[in-house]
Amino acid sequence: MSHPRKPRQNVGLGVWKNRRMPSPVTPPRGMRDFLPKDKRRRDLVLDAIRSTYRSFGFDEIETPVVEDSARLHAGLGGDNEKLAFAVMKRGLTPEALHDAATPLDLADLGLRFDLTVPLARFYASHRAELPTVFRSIQIAPVWRAERPQKGRYRQFVQCDIDIIGEPGAMAEIELLSATSAVLTTLGLTGTTIRINDRRILLALLAHWSVPAERLEHALVIIDKLDKIGVDGVVGELSQIGVVTDGLAAQLGQLATATWESVSAGAAPEWLDPDAFADLLALRDGLPDARLEFDPTLVRGMGYYTGTIFEVAHPDFGYSLGGGGRYDGMIGRFLGAEVPAAGFSLGFERLVDLVELPGDDDGDGDGVVLLYDGSLDPARLVRLQHEVAAARGRVRLDKKAKNLKNQLAGLAALGYGQFAMVGGTEVAADDLEFRPLA
Amino acid sequence: MSHPRKPRQNVGLGVWKNRRMPSPVTPPRGMRDFLPKDKRRRDLVLDAIRSTYRSFGFDEIETPVVEDSARLHAGLGGDNEKLAFAVMKRGLTPEALHDAATPLDLADLGLRFDLTVPLARFYASHRAELPTVFRSIQIAPVWRAERPQKGRYRQFVQCDIDIIGEPGAMAEIELLSATSAVLTTLGLTGTTIRINDRRILLALLAHWSVPAERLEHALVIIDKLDKIGVDGVVGELSQIGVVTDGLAAQLGQLATATWESVSAGAAPEWLDPDAFADLLALRDGLPDARLEFDPTLVRGMGYYTGTIFEVAHPDFGYSLGGGGRYDGMIGRFLGAEVPAAGFSLGFERLVDLVELPGDDDGDGDGVVLLYDGSLDPARLVRLQHEVAAARGRVRLDKKAKNLKNQLAGLAALGYGQFAMVGGTEVAADDLEFRPLA
Repeated sequence: MSHPRKPRQNVGLGVWKNRRMPSPVTPPRGMRDFLPKDKRRRDLVLDAIRSTYRSFGFDEIETPVVEDSARLHAGLGGDNEKLAFAVMKRGLTPEALHDAATPLDLADLGLRFDLTVPLARFYASHRAELPTVFRSIQIAPVWRAERPQKGRYRQFVQCDIDIIGEPGAMAEIELLSATSAVLTTLGLTGTTIRINDRRILLALLAHWSVPAERLEHALVIIDKLDKIGVDGVVGELSQIGVVTDGLAAQLGQLATATWESVSAGAAPEWLDPDAFADLLALRDGLPDARLEFDPTLVRGMGYYTGTIFEVAHPDFGYSLGGGGRYDGMIGRFLGAEVPAAGFSLGFERLVDLVELPGDDDGDGDGVVLLYDGSLDPARLVRLQHEVAAARGRVRLDKKAKNLKNQLAGLAALGYGQFAMVGGTEVAADDLEFRPLA
Repeated sequence: MSHPRKPRQNVGLGVWKNRRMPSPVTPPRGMRDFLPKDKRRRDLVLDAIRSTYRSFGFDEIETPVVEDSARLHAGLGGDNEKLAFAVMKRGLTPEALHDAATPLDLADLGLRFDLTVPLARFYASHRAELPTVFRSIQIAPVWRAERPQKGRYRQFVQCDIDIIGEPGAMAEIELLSATSAVLTTLGLTGTTIRINDRRILLALLAHWSVPAERLEHALVIIDKLDKIGVDGVVGELSQIGVVTDGLAAQLGQLATATWESVSAGAAPEWLDPDAFADLLALRDGLPDARLEFDPTLVRGMGYYTGTIFEVAHPDFGYSLGGGGRYDGMIGRFLGAEVPAAGFSLGFERLVDLVELPGDDDGDGDGVVLLYDGSLDPARLVRLQHEVAAARGRVRLDKKAKNLKNQLAGLAALGYGQFAMVGGTEVAADDLEFRPLA
């Protein structure tokens, strides 16, 4: 360098010098840091999702990461409400701590556990400024205090689309059609869509005379059909008081039902005809998709009121996302009935499956200017500006003693070529670029 | 629609039907929702910042929005630590509430108040996987429980770049050179950079015999020079016990100092010569920038150890961003001395100043297909796919009774053209597009 400088002394104010630092430097439990390569990969996948949904007329919105505690705990979030991280009120006195009966008495905000409760609050607040049929994109993190385990994180990204204000099957058709396009963009073709309608399940439970207060529990049990089989489900349903002639036979029909088996001849007595007609409308509206009728599909959330669906890929044992119609919920904060349907992609699983062109070793589109001490900084940064205009991405690096190691490291960072600069004045056009790897 | 359907009844499980909903639907105090138009505008500006910094060899990383409480309150955040939102421990018992002496006893996490403390923690955790000189980008929200007021938010986005591992002036030169390119990309030319070095201020305070425990307070007072003038600052410094012959004269010199006034003849006795030499190196390294020497520039954070700088635009009465060298801090969680310098753009102010091409009424690049009931959904979504491939962004909308209103609304959403579809089978190539506005 032409301007050698003495090593600087640490002359900070030293306010923190004598404090004891905690030693662990990992992220908080169940959460992750993203290094440049991971961050880049995630952003490229998110951008592909965002721009594909945008191309189908959806518009992205954003809400704060916290919501007022009263709204998070209004009963719209089901079991997830229990997993919400609570943010403490400001200016609490020792007396307030003593007077609190439960921790929630000390919190006035909470980190959102999903993007649907914030959407309901957003829609209630901004309805007058939104189109009659509002197609929203939300791509943002949510937080749940789950027990950390492989593939489950306490902060993770959700990709939600919702159509608010369209009561007809066109909403579901658009959600699934746009999502198919997203999956195709990401190289995930050959997916299937399992589809059901909450009204079928509820009509069935009514047929079995399950009382209202047991409905949710009964749905949880039916959801286990593929894990514990017909006998297991019959056993658990009996335990909560469901005793019905022909229970096992009907569960068997459910587990093996197809479009054809329920359409042929007389429809089973447990099949809600309105709901099934709606499902057929979806099937006809999506002739290019593989829709499988699955009357055992439950999906967890209590707010679904009509169609429910999950997208799966034959290569993976889990769903890539799901959604459904939830007409009662979006208008809840408005005190009005607003039709709505949504779909949520499981981004954290998806991102591991996707192969993007050139993302395995970075994008390889950048160049490095390796400098020795012979060019002054002003000349170096001017060169960098000139080369950046032509080549997109330029890193300045001081030439290290071990050049081979340095070049390997730069290649690993995703740079493709390098040039030596120094000695005589060099013009950007005269630089000789060589491949790094 | 070819598949008319009965209005759906709300047959949800009703678990939340009888709960009383809170009525306000605004975002939490001091925080904001972003409607599609605002969200789009913010993302376009952020993308321009991100891609320009990337083109200068910086790499983006991401950390969780919360950090362990012990690290947030380790003294690296100055006064901002007091503004941190605290996240409560899980599973607190009533006894724990009673036993707590202060609210922080009940919190194990907190929302980050800046991106520098998380960067120090990230660097300590991942140093082995990072290049020797690490140039980071962090573009992410932070949270501060400030008293809400115009232009101050409790959740806001920071755009930080940092160079870790470079002890020489090249770090500051790269930070300022890349930032100039960002501002040019955003159409903000003609900016000036005020520049100083913490060692000059500290040498001056030592010259006045200000004791260590008063240093920070004295800096806060000097920072008011442009607001309360020399007499005001002399008064306040006297109140904290600074009594020096020639105090007023030296403050007057500070307030009017330029490169020339301190270079000509004998340097003022308060001018730290090493620090001034470093400032000259920066000036020489950035010949295209307008660097103003300002020995009264303080910047709030206690962790700065060398150069400090702020970027201003002559049209606006506030700085667009600032930064400096903070060699002591990044290594604090490592127990090692690591040289570092950073720059932070004030995104929330910046975004209001920037004019992006075509962002005033959306981007006008989309088209709308208006349908009546004569085409079935399958045909509609297939048309949408075909048109999306050719035209980028396609919204399906049912033709409304008041077509004029509908078209105006669609234009306001940022769409440029529309075509009617229906009647006979229409091929994508045969659609007649007309301008919306």
